[in-house]
Amino acid sequence: MAAITTEEFNRLAIDHLPFMDLMNVEVDAIEKEFAVLRANCDEKSLRPGGTVAGPVMMGLADAAFYAIVLANIGMVSLAVTTNLTINFLRKPGPGDVYCRATLLKLGKRLAVCEGLIYTEELGIEKPVAHVTGTYSIPPS
Amino acid sequence: MAAITTEEFNRLAIDHLPFMDLMNVEVDAIEKEFAVLRANCDEKSLRPGGTVAGPVMMGLADAAFYAIVLANIGMVSLAVTTNLTINFLRKPGPGDVYCRATLLKLGKRLAVCEGLIYTEELGIEKPVAHVTGTYSIPPS
Amino acid sequence: MAAITTEEFNRLAIDHLPFMDLMNVEVDAIEKEFAVLRANCDEKSLRPGGTVAGPVMMGLADAAFYAIVLANIGMVSLAVTTNLTINFLRKPGPGDVYCRATLLKLGKRLAVCEGLIYTEELGIEKPVAHVTGTYSIPPS
Amino acid sequence: MAAITTEEFNRLAIDHLPFMDLMNVEVDAIEKEFAVLRANCDEKSLRPGGTVAGPVMMGLADAAFYAIVLANIGMVSLAVTTNLTINFLRKPGPGDVYCRATLLKLGKRLAVCEGLIYTEELGIEKPVAHVTGTYSIPPS
Repeated sequence: MAAITTEEFNRLAIDHLPFMDLMNVEVDAIEKEFAVLRANCDEKSLRPGGTVAGPVMMGLADAAFYAIVLANIGMVSLAVTTNLTINFLRKPGPGDVYCRATLLKLGKRLAVCEGLIYTEELGIEKPVAHVTGTYSIPPS
Repeated sequence: MAAITTEEFNRLAIDHLPFMDLMNVEVDAIEKEFAVLRANCDEKSLRPGGTVAGPVMMGLADAAFYAIVLANIGMVSLAVTTNLTINFLRKPGPGDVYCRATLLKLGKRLAVCEGLIYTEELGIEKPVAHVTGTYSIPPS
Repeated sequence: MAAITTEEFNRLAIDHLPFMDLMNVEVDAIEKEFAVLRANCDEKSLRPGGTVAGPVMMGLADAAFYAIVLANIGMVSLAVTTNLTINFLRKPGPGDVYCRATLLKLGKRLAVCEGLIYTEELGIEKPVAHVTGTYSIPPS
Repeated sequence: MAAITTEEFNRLAIDHLPFMDLMNVEVDAIEKEFAVLRANCDEKSLRPGGTVAGPVMMGLADAAFYAIVLANIGMVSLAVTTNLTINFLRKPGPGDVYCRATLLKLGKRLAVCEGLIYTEELGIEKPVAHVTGTYSIPPS
């Protein structure tokens, strides 16, 4: 079972991740094994042609990584991203984008996360971006 | 001399980078050798404690990379980011953050950019983040 | 069906990847969907305690990415790595390490690869490293 | 003054970095502010056309990062690389390659390093690769 509920994460996000609100990011699921977050894309999130802007995907991934880390270590708000690498793969059409985040490793001091960003149109088999990131976990 | 002016970039950004507006990003300088962009941070850009949110820095770097690439190849709006890696180094205090972007390489098909993100308080010698990114340049 | 055979790749590697020989890297499988390469680790590949050295894993991944790219585009020896990101996850015990490489995207100009590095002892479910990399494909 | 001497690093490398010997990597300078290591390239390190193989550059950077970290924290052999990102920029001609490593940040738990890989022929102003990497520092 996840160490936090979606409600708890949403409350935390209001304080800690104002960016989620700015980018219309919402939680679809938080489990111990994975988290799925969604960016509701409007015209502010788009590039011309209807493509979702890169920074929206980066922010979405960062939030999804925070969610999967907290789902495993509990409400440790001071866990911070130390690095993030994103590869853009395909241009999404207009519409919401999703990030499915999993843990590659959960150590005492570092958690390494992987995220696939995808759309309903293309499906997760043809992801629009791939992201890895590391969170530093403060001593308890 | 830069292949685009700050005015031309700003006009392009209105169409192509709505994210710049969302994040209050402005251009300080666009030269052939470097570009400096600034994110005017308000409470929406912050994490608790006044730290600037990671996604703001990623979006700022992405915009700065776009600027330095166009400063060298001209108004090629379809140049797209193919990947970006950010290392977070220090927690900035409240206030604006700057990204100074330079080109590590300008090829026919790929441009590789480096960015230092810094604040006035800490100075560029103690950057708050380091970013590398690649832009794919479409065939002319 | 893969666009190259293991034999063809091995012949190419003799000319193009002398590093494979230096690091005792061998091909286990080359399919269109994935490639598996193995580094036969001896004392030269190890750090004290029997841990496989990081550069061996990076070289192994680079070779595996080359294999999966050629399995899809054919014998284009001038495809070159443009970037590579590796996250080290767990310390492998002594013994061979494997890299299972897949394609995240195959474009006309860029191929983006993902690799999981693992050992028999821990299994692929507990990978020792995760790697992403991009190959630039020359115009045909 | 650096917290280790070149001699001490070389002795450590014999035990901890057998890869340095395999790749003919030698130390040119270890200072507190920077370290310069050199890979003496022979035919085993080359791709056809005389280009230095990517994995040699990755191994060189990894060793140079280890050197600059130890130059600042002293003889902590268990500092380990947690991630590394390399961007290949230009094809070096035949000949030795150098890596000049500096610290972007030295924290209590993490050190973030930057390296420029260059040749005498092209000079450091036209680097052949750019590398960032993170070392995890064990609790003392």
